Amino acid sequence: MPSAASTTVRILIGGLTLLVAVGYKNYRDLGAPGKRPNLDNNEYWGPQLKGAYQENKAIRPYDISVAPELIADLKTQLERPLKVHDPLEGIGFEYGFNSNELKKVVKYWRDDYLPNWSKREEFLKKFQHFQTEIQGLKIHFIHAKPTNAKGKKVVPLLLMHGWPGTVREFYDFIPLLTKGSDKSEYVFEVIAPSLPGYGWSQGASRPGMGVAQVAVIMRNLMLRLGFDKFLIQGGDWGSIIGSNLASLFPENTVGYHSNMCNNNSPMGHLRMLLSSIIPSFYIDSQYAQYYGGIGKIFITLLEEFGYAHIQATKPDTIGAALTHNPVGLAAYILEKFSTWTNPAYKNLKDGGLTKYFTYDQLLDNIMIYYVTNSITTSVRLYSESMGKAQQDLNVDSVPVKAPVACARFAHEIFHVPDSVLANKFPNLIQSTHYPDGGHFPAFQVPEQLYADFVSFVQKALKSN
Amino acid sequence: MPSAASTTVRILIGGLTLLVAVGYKNYRDLGAPGKRPNLDNNEYWGPQLKGAYQENKAIRPYDISVAPELIADLKTQLERPLKVHDPLEGIGFEYGFNSNELKKVVKYWRDDYLPNWSKREEFLKKFQHFQTEIQGLKIHFIHAKPTNAKGKKVVPLLLMHGWPGTVREFYDFIPLLTKGSDKSEYVFEVIAPSLPGYGWSQGASRPGMGVAQVAVIMRNLMLRLGFDKFLIQGGDWGSIIGSNLASLFPENTVGYHSNMCNNNSPMGHLRMLLSSIIPSFYIDSQYAQYYGGIGKIFITLLEEFGYAHIQATKPDTIGAALTHNPVGLAAYILEKFSTWTNPAYKNLKDGGLTKYFTYDQLLDNIMIYYVTNSITTSVRLYSESMGKAQQDLNVDSVPVKAPVACARFAHEIFHVPDSVLANKFPNLIQSTHYPDGGHFPAFQVPEQLYADFVSFVQKALKSN
Repeated sequence: MPSAASTTVRILIGGLTLLVAVGYKNYRDLGAPGKRPNLDNNEYWGPQLKGAYQENKAIRPYDISVAPELIADLKTQLERPLKVHDPLEGIGFEYGFNSNELKKVVKYWRDDYLPNWSKREEFLKKFQHFQTEIQGLKIHFIHAKPTNAKGKKVVPLLLMHGWPGTVREFYDFIPLLTKGSDKSEYVFEVIAPSLPGYGWSQGASRPGMGVAQVAVIMRNLMLRLGFDKFLIQGGDWGSIIGSNLASLFPENTVGYHSNMCNNNSPMGHLRMLLSSIIPSFYIDSQYAQYYGGIGKIFITLLEEFGYAHIQATKPDTIGAALTHNPVGLAAYILEKFSTWTNPAYKNLKDGGLTKYFTYDQLLDNIMIYYVTNSITTSVRLYSESMGKAQQDLNVDSVPVKAPVACARFAHEIFHVPDSVLANKFPNLIQSTHYPDGGHFPAFQVPEQLYADFVSFVQKALKSN
Repeated sequence: MPSAASTTVRILIGGLTLLVAVGYKNYRDLGAPGKRPNLDNNEYWGPQLKGAYQENKAIRPYDISVAPELIADLKTQLERPLKVHDPLEGIGFEYGFNSNELKKVVKYWRDDYLPNWSKREEFLKKFQHFQTEIQGLKIHFIHAKPTNAKGKKVVPLLLMHGWPGTVREFYDFIPLLTKGSDKSEYVFEVIAPSLPGYGWSQGASRPGMGVAQVAVIMRNLMLRLGFDKFLIQGGDWGSIIGSNLASLFPENTVGYHSNMCNNNSPMGHLRMLLSSIIPSFYIDSQYAQYYGGIGKIFITLLEEFGYAHIQATKPDTIGAALTHNPVGLAAYILEKFSTWTNPAYKNLKDGGLTKYFTYDQLLDNIMIYYVTNSITTSVRLYSESMGKAQQDLNVDSVPVKAPVACARFAHEIFHVPDSVLANKFPNLIQSTHYPDGGHFPAFQVPEQLYADFVSFVQKALKSN
């Protein structure tokens, strides 16, 4: 295949084309807020039907128990001789997941984790799980009610994970939200769904279900549960789906809190470009170290976005490669829990995986992908959300009316400064920078995320 | 993860940075031929040694027989219930490898191909296989001597495959070369190595073995066999390694024939950019349809280069995902034999896989990756060749003195016009365009490739 320089020149050529195209097409109305696109709020995503669709609106407790045969088969798979290649001499995670560390993970999984599976399963059941049918898809969610609402105001919260996460990321965060604290006069009734196609939530059978369409489903879930005004919190895809929901349905959104704020509107692109070239005009100097210059952004894009590139274009190929393949799935997913927690961990032989997480935590998350066989449907979200159809909706040009908070944890892959977010989030009432944490703060530093969140809620609900 | 537009703007930002960087750094001496970089012609790539390295220069016949236990284990793997997800409704290969087609491939592999494995193995042994040690690595090669040299001049030929190919691509091409024809007064003594880290050739134990370093090994192989002047033919990485060899060792290269000509020098980049924007200045109008405009190139780069992006940055992750995973390996590799044979096959339910190839041919190629457990070491060639160290060598700025031919088969991923190749190949004596064929012409249209090759050799050797 064409070598690097050739690829680079084509990226360059592509960038220039895009500049021209974007320049002519999109930037004409640069400052103007966009219109809410017309989305079908009842669009059907299930398998093709012979007759008319009848939605079963029942909300049923959902048993997440795993069939013992599946666990037995997994054990058999993990007992196969592990034929992964040795890493190159002197290499940690610079070439991806280090195979010596992978051997350790697999050994732990087989010899320690799986023999204790009934305990892990019990732990995963510590919240109440439910399932309901929305637009043809069985949607799973955790519903955690306040454990001590005395003297507190209860507010519903839609809490959304991303890829390669699951609701497991929230197991230490949810109790903080539901038990309340002296930091807040509010306590939260938490709805934490598995995104469609992730974990116990069914994926679409038809093309076209990108972030805007998922936002419609998530809102319908909240309406089904009787919440027509709610808070939203999310990172990764959960953040993007959350901002889509907040743009599309201002009547339902009382506040949006993100730990990965982003602005994909044309104005956002232009300002992102400018802020990377002349940061002093756009970025508060005290936080300059959080924002990469243009060179650093380019290098990060080249070095860290291969997974997104392949998932956006060949999701079914990478899905087939990881389906029913526990060792590969662990390498593919855990690489992200290393590098996205801190990019410096790429230089460590063990990827720093257990600096903040335990193998049990990490394997719980992988088990959810494995036992639900959802890796293919999960990565399809990239292709559905990064294509032209989704771009054309231009949801990001519709400003979010609700109060917004952006929490930035130091080692997130990219940070977007307030100045870039301005046209999308005119009501950005809280903007924070933390010297630690990474892409998975609910999982890694739940107390910090909780403190940030309740500080926001206090301001947001007062200002409503 | 950041959605498409955000990624796009970052690509754009990156492209611009690069434009500036390249503008200042590289283009100063744009027209000047580069110098041959200093490479260690005896660099050691094997596992760390306690003492000094003693190369075993013996050339030994090599038995490619596969251990029956491995075949039995593979059978067990293929008998596992296949849990791949259904494709989205109405979808062919647009989301990557179609899982219905994958089910057919796996079924054939298990029920038809494997039961006949001894015949396939016998077929793969139809050429003589050898192994020798070079720079610490065991290097495998096919050595096919002329079967009928009567009245013909015999010329040695180094024939190199790429990724995800193997020497199997050449099984119909080699006999044409060795038996000769009335089309040519020459007949060929063919050396077709497995690239280091591919098939039966050992991969490096240390970082840094990119295309230039592989070229050194390939030349040493030819010298070992007593050939100090030889022809080179290749596509994909074989083409790039071949042009590196021709640039680095003009004293050994009597001619270079490529079915994927490329020019990665700074001048090549500039001209590629210009030829995409104003094709009429650079491209012969009768072949205009072979060359994409800037927009088509950008879209192809976005849609088709995810695999290269991940392989160049996380080879060990994707390697771990595909190791010892026959179903995933088949999906990952065969996707390329569909799309690279004709991009229009993405719209077909079966990917058009059997339009030119049989399942037997395709599975032979996959078997070589599987039984040698070489997928990880094979994809590392991307990271070693697409990084800064390799760029800095700038081998592509060293003009190839030997006569050169560029054969362009219609459905190759990208074509590079003669005007762009000019500074790298000043002695381009043959340039052809064929209305059929794709990325694997030796495998797909061997007669056509043969005719093109011998036509070139006639001119090249006359002009020497």
